[in-house]
Amino acid sequence: MLAKIHITLKKDVLDPQGSVIANSLKSLGFDNVRDVRQGKFIELEIEGKDRDTATKQCNEMCEKLLANLVIEDYSVEIES
Amino acid sequence: MLAKIHITLKKDVLDPQGSVIANSLKSLGFDNVRDVRQGKFIELEIEGKDRDTATKQCNEMCEKLLANLVIEDYSVEIES
Repeated sequence: MLAKIHITLKKDVLDPQGSVIANSLKSLGFDNVRDVRQGKFIELEIEGKDRDTATKQCNEMCEKLLANLVIEDYSVEIES
Repeated sequence: MLAKIHITLKKDVLDPQGSVIANSLKSLGFDNVRDVRQGKFIELEIEGKDRDTATKQCNEMCEKLLANLVIEDYSVEIES
């Protein structure tokens, strides 16, 4: 199964990388862009047949390694 | 409108960061994980009412600034 994991900064955490992107886009002429936030996107193949187990495992991976829960949120989607 | 942009390495480009994540997950006991790929996820607010224009603008942003088209692919989703 293919797992797609999004890791994003929590809403109230400053995102300097996002601000730099927003400024660069503005200087390129994209004036109608606001609130740029950059996050991580991780795709992985997980062996097994049970969707629920896979989701549980991915949540565990995020909590143990992939995300910093103090400042980041994560979401997991499983595609078979 | 909210634009969600995924930027991923092309399939045949080596992803050392993904390999490191895969190894770390294995050492944590997640033995059934393969093919980890890490990409970027960018969310931005784009002013305007026309979905097609917004999509076109986001494609342009990817081509001019956000993605390195030699090694990366991108995809754009617009949510209103």
